[in-house]
Amino acid sequence: MFTANIPMAHVGPIKICGPHMNEDVHVPLATYELPLWPSTNRGAKISRLAGGINVVVVDDRMTRSILLEAPNALRAVEMVRDLEQRHEELNAIITNTSNYAKLLDIHSQIVGTLVYLRIECSSGDASGHNMVTQASQHIMNWLLDQYSDMQYVSVSANYCTDKKVSAVNGILGRGKYVIAEVTIPKEICSNDLRTTAQKIVELNTKKNLIGTTLAGGLRTANAHFANILLAAYLATGQDAANIVEGSQGIVYADNRNDDLYFSVTLPNIIVGTVGNGKGLNFVQKNLADLGCLEQRAPGENATRLAVIIAATVLCGELSLMAALTNPGELMRSHLLLERKKA
Amino acid sequence: MFTANIPMAHVGPIKICGPHMNEDVHVPLATYELPLWPSTNRGAKISRLAGGINVVVVDDRMTRSILLEAPNALRAVEMVRDLEQRHEELNAIITNTSNYAKLLDIHSQIVGTLVYLRIECSSGDASGHNMVTQASQHIMNWLLDQYSDMQYVSVSANYCTDKKVSAVNGILGRGKYVIAEVTIPKEICSNDLRTTAQKIVELNTKKNLIGTTLAGGLRTANAHFANILLAAYLATGQDAANIVEGSQGIVYADNRNDDLYFSVTLPNIIVGTVGNGKGLNFVQKNLADLGCLEQRAPGENATRLAVIIAATVLCGELSLMAALTNPGELMRSHLLLERKKA
Amino acid sequence: MFTANIPMAHVGPIKICGPHMNEDVHVPLATYELPLWPSTNRGAKISRLAGGINVVVVDDRMTRSILLEAPNALRAVEMVRDLEQRHEELNAIITNTSNYAKLLDIHSQIVGTLVYLRIECSSGDASGHNMVTQASQHIMNWLLDQYSDMQYVSVSANYCTDKKVSAVNGILGRGKYVIAEVTIPKEICSNDLRTTAQKIVELNTKKNLIGTTLAGGLRTANAHFANILLAAYLATGQDAANIVEGSQGIVYADNRNDDLYFSVTLPNIIVGTVGNGKGLNFVQKNLADLGCLEQRAPGENATRLAVIIAATVLCGELSLMAALTNPGELMRSHLLLERKKA
Amino acid sequence: MFTANIPMAHVGPIKICGPHMNEDVHVPLATYELPLWPSTNRGAKISRLAGGINVVVVDDRMTRSILLEAPNALRAVEMVRDLEQRHEELNAIITNTSNYAKLLDIHSQIVGTLVYLRIECSSGDASGHNMVTQASQHIMNWLLDQYSDMQYVSVSANYCTDKKVSAVNGILGRGKYVIAEVTIPKEICSNDLRTTAQKIVELNTKKNLIGTTLAGGLRTANAHFANILLAAYLATGQDAANIVEGSQGIVYADNRNDDLYFSVTLPNIIVGTVGNGKGLNFVQKNLADLGCLEQRAPGENATRLAVIIAATVLCGELSLMAALTNPGELMRSHLLLERKKA
Repeated sequence: MFTANIPMAHVGPIKICGPHMNEDVHVPLATYELPLWPSTNRGAKISRLAGGINVVVVDDRMTRSILLEAPNALRAVEMVRDLEQRHEELNAIITNTSNYAKLLDIHSQIVGTLVYLRIECSSGDASGHNMVTQASQHIMNWLLDQYSDMQYVSVSANYCTDKKVSAVNGILGRGKYVIAEVTIPKEICSNDLRTTAQKIVELNTKKNLIGTTLAGGLRTANAHFANILLAAYLATGQDAANIVEGSQGIVYADNRNDDLYFSVTLPNIIVGTVGNGKGLNFVQKNLADLGCLEQRAPGENATRLAVIIAATVLCGELSLMAALTNPGELMRSHLLLERKKA
Repeated sequence: MFTANIPMAHVGPIKICGPHMNEDVHVPLATYELPLWPSTNRGAKISRLAGGINVVVVDDRMTRSILLEAPNALRAVEMVRDLEQRHEELNAIITNTSNYAKLLDIHSQIVGTLVYLRIECSSGDASGHNMVTQASQHIMNWLLDQYSDMQYVSVSANYCTDKKVSAVNGILGRGKYVIAEVTIPKEICSNDLRTTAQKIVELNTKKNLIGTTLAGGLRTANAHFANILLAAYLATGQDAANIVEGSQGIVYADNRNDDLYFSVTLPNIIVGTVGNGKGLNFVQKNLADLGCLEQRAPGENATRLAVIIAATVLCGELSLMAALTNPGELMRSHLLLERKKA
Repeated sequence: MFTANIPMAHVGPIKICGPHMNEDVHVPLATYELPLWPSTNRGAKISRLAGGINVVVVDDRMTRSILLEAPNALRAVEMVRDLEQRHEELNAIITNTSNYAKLLDIHSQIVGTLVYLRIECSSGDASGHNMVTQASQHIMNWLLDQYSDMQYVSVSANYCTDKKVSAVNGILGRGKYVIAEVTIPKEICSNDLRTTAQKIVELNTKKNLIGTTLAGGLRTANAHFANILLAAYLATGQDAANIVEGSQGIVYADNRNDDLYFSVTLPNIIVGTVGNGKGLNFVQKNLADLGCLEQRAPGENATRLAVIIAATVLCGELSLMAALTNPGELMRSHLLLERKKA
Repeated sequence: MFTANIPMAHVGPIKICGPHMNEDVHVPLATYELPLWPSTNRGAKISRLAGGINVVVVDDRMTRSILLEAPNALRAVEMVRDLEQRHEELNAIITNTSNYAKLLDIHSQIVGTLVYLRIECSSGDASGHNMVTQASQHIMNWLLDQYSDMQYVSVSANYCTDKKVSAVNGILGRGKYVIAEVTIPKEICSNDLRTTAQKIVELNTKKNLIGTTLAGGLRTANAHFANILLAAYLATGQDAANIVEGSQGIVYADNRNDDLYFSVTLPNIIVGTVGNGKGLNFVQKNLADLGCLEQRAPGENATRLAVIIAATVLCGELSLMAALTNPGELMRSHLLLERKKA
């Protein structure tokens, strides 16, 4: 088989702590943009100097929306209200299709006669795309049977939404919702990041928050989450097109007596440790090295992977933000790197 | 060096026509999601049966925004107005930093005392990220010198915007703005896509347009542009994090006497044929096979690559949309593929 | 007291049917844009010719978000999880502040250490702004007491969101979610709207859906909902700044054997029949004439008002859309009106 | 004629300075929400204590988009490129339709075969809705004549965009783009607003910027611009449905040595001093009292009105933000007001 052989290196160790793990981890990143490695490594160093990055997982679900059409709006409303009473039946259909899928919730939207149902499931250690698609197909068949005046429109209706910019994924959840945070003492800010808490806080306001608002951004306020997510997804066999929603995350920084509180909030990390891509040799090795192929309760390996990736995103984001507070640093470091390559 | 070896295969040939090229092309796609190959191949077959996909490039530019702060809003406005008279000086700075960069335009936004300048350049056959960053750094230095009451804030200010969801990239342009279209006779719709023009048009309205609107989408109306862009970017050495903005494109379908007019509009294809990643052996081979390493006027190889990718996106999008019009087809084809693998 | 005396006239009768009411209603509209009256009146005529506009209310709630800060992200998550178990206590606090408020749901978002809680209540016949503000204040006090490591940030945190563009109001609900629909026979389209079902469907796709997508619209796809909402809100004593979210609605039109199915979906109609503004003489008269001051179960008068307004929005939207399908009609009707005035 | 008589009172005087005017102005506000008056009045007091609100106008234009359809995408591109060379001809058409309209720019978007042209004009002292509509109609006729293979779709295509949420109005401009700013000494913050610069800055970050981002806001970061805009628009005869885009503005606050820099940026104030609504007696009186009916160069009266309204928005926004930094203040002041009424 042909392969695209993308440069890969480890960054770290990144010191991670919190309710999910307390370890120093080396993280593989596959990328064509080689400056990403030293930049993220600088963040990793900070994680060790500052006593670790706390990471906590807020939520976890995979979703698919289906679309039916009713004869009129009233029937659409009646069907949705009826369904609200039948979650147990729906869950039974879903659990029949997989050992790991379980119904978490259903949200609906009605537009005229169109009924959009967003089916939200747990999916164990799989990212869950195929699991919810299969579940949705069975639910669609059941709905067409139970509500005979409804028409099939589509088993995928963009209210999911997969690999598309949206607000719904952040508000209702898709993938793992993860927060990573670190508090960096004043001296480390100064010595190792050549910046101050106040400078980072102001840059975050002016660039990530106001700058993004001006650009017409949507539920996003960061410098380059997408870069780090892409590299970590590729190295661990993930469907990297999910960086589209993954990129929609928020940096919140705070000046706490000149120490820097720095956090990244990633509502949509979509990863698994089983499924498409995971069987490849280098992926297996990377997942094993990350401790993500252990015998654990279903979902815990994937959660661990999301925790590690969120900490890595923090490292890369922090490093770039610090560099941008210094006029000329970004270009100098690029030039230095180019010279080294030559 | 370690590498992440991502499965790669060719789809096609895709028949491409229009002002930029008239050829049948085999396109390499690197992906962990193997069903993408047969699905896109079905679209490629349609391209041949229907007489080819017309592709036209509307615009081409690379951008970077910089951020300064004025002592008050009036000074901010005065500086921006003054700059509007000095495009030639700015262009001279830019052309000094690169043989290929040229100033195309500058757009500004002022918020209180904050001045965001979006610098828009041509970048030859490079995607142009580094070129505009370097140009921006020089412009920043010059501005701080010329307008001595201005303060440096950042050489990257998210009004660019790179790898983040936005409206600005679609409205003002970033990367190559490409439209691909095909008209598919009624019989081919029926025999080879098992659908009709009317079904596709209605699905596009209900899923891609209304469904995305409900999801809180932003300047996006498609089923899975991101999947195909990712695979093509990885196979050709591109910075694939740019699928974030690349995913923000629009499908427009029209029923023309039961023939199907189907188009994909991609305002932000960001690709190059030189630069980071392009020197790798498999990338060189892929670019050469695609005819994108020829002796041509600067920019024409990169334009050709964007044209090919847009046609490929059309193939993948058309195939999935047709499948979704048929209840059960999506799952059946997935199951079939799984069985083949086993 | 000084007053701004805004021109007001009645349109109609509009024929309304469905689960909430079956009546012909004259609707007062206050506006400086006098062409709004004849235009909406044309839609009202269609409502009578076509057998009535069906209106159905999907949901009803008023919201306010509050913001606290935790010492770290983990504590933020723990507090939110704990609260999920204490909805009864929260409801008790709310019902203590008002005879009409009742807790419907709470949604949360966590960003680093910041905790946003969106409190969703029923509010009887009031639009509910003040009711939920008061409830939120009491909940804030209780939270600061119960979770002593939390800090007050704000009793209004823009995740509500009041009178601001958002996706959250459409996805989670705010105000009354109302759908109005009508099916217009082919002949009436042709004779009374000088258009066809197909023309309206195509215009809706090209203007309201794709045009809005290009503009970087958000959860909105209509021509001029805001005009009609403003006029109806002013005439009935509503806080008309809520047209900001009210304007975010969707037109769905469908060609059904050359008959036109035309619907307006308004997820955020925010109206009351008691509260600020409602005591003014002309408002009392208008509400009474509309049958919205009757002895009914709490909330039913306000629901009736929302139903009437949604039907009126349909009339105005339909009329403008039909006019736009005819080259030159819009300008001709404006000129005609100007001449009449003179 | 019937009228809706909306309570109206003056706030102020507001001290306004900067390049456009240096005066103390009483501003009429018409609203059902009576607490708006004392709240905005508190801001007005600050304007006097702090030496005045600086206001500067950045841009001014009115827009309308039209929509045509080409036989294929290539023809669409060719037409748009050809038009770029013909701005003088287009301007001649426009100036023929009005003494005040002048072409400022044209922006285009192409989706498949659809061509959206956004026509941007100056409009003197009129808000310009009718002026650009008329101009657009003439341009449409001319285009259909000049490019005979183009089809009419609509003279209004939502890429304008009028009274709808968008990003395009902020990025390309619509109405008057106005910035108002004030620097408030530390003691005044403390004594008259019962707050500090730091508290306002943090609240702006957490509520207006991050809170709005979470809500899925779009190009908006403020607490209640819409309230003040609505009241000022109604009192001065404006088409108040334009608060939809008007509400999309940004607060930028900065702590400058414990003094508070506070600014409101309003990219889309849409007002006129002539046209619909302006002839009513109370409107004439209000405009005259505001000094907006003087003999001045075309456009200067409308500019003055926009300047005054922006300063008023600042007063209202500042007052609410300060109140929110104090736990309980918002409710206390509401209760106090209710008691006074009783």
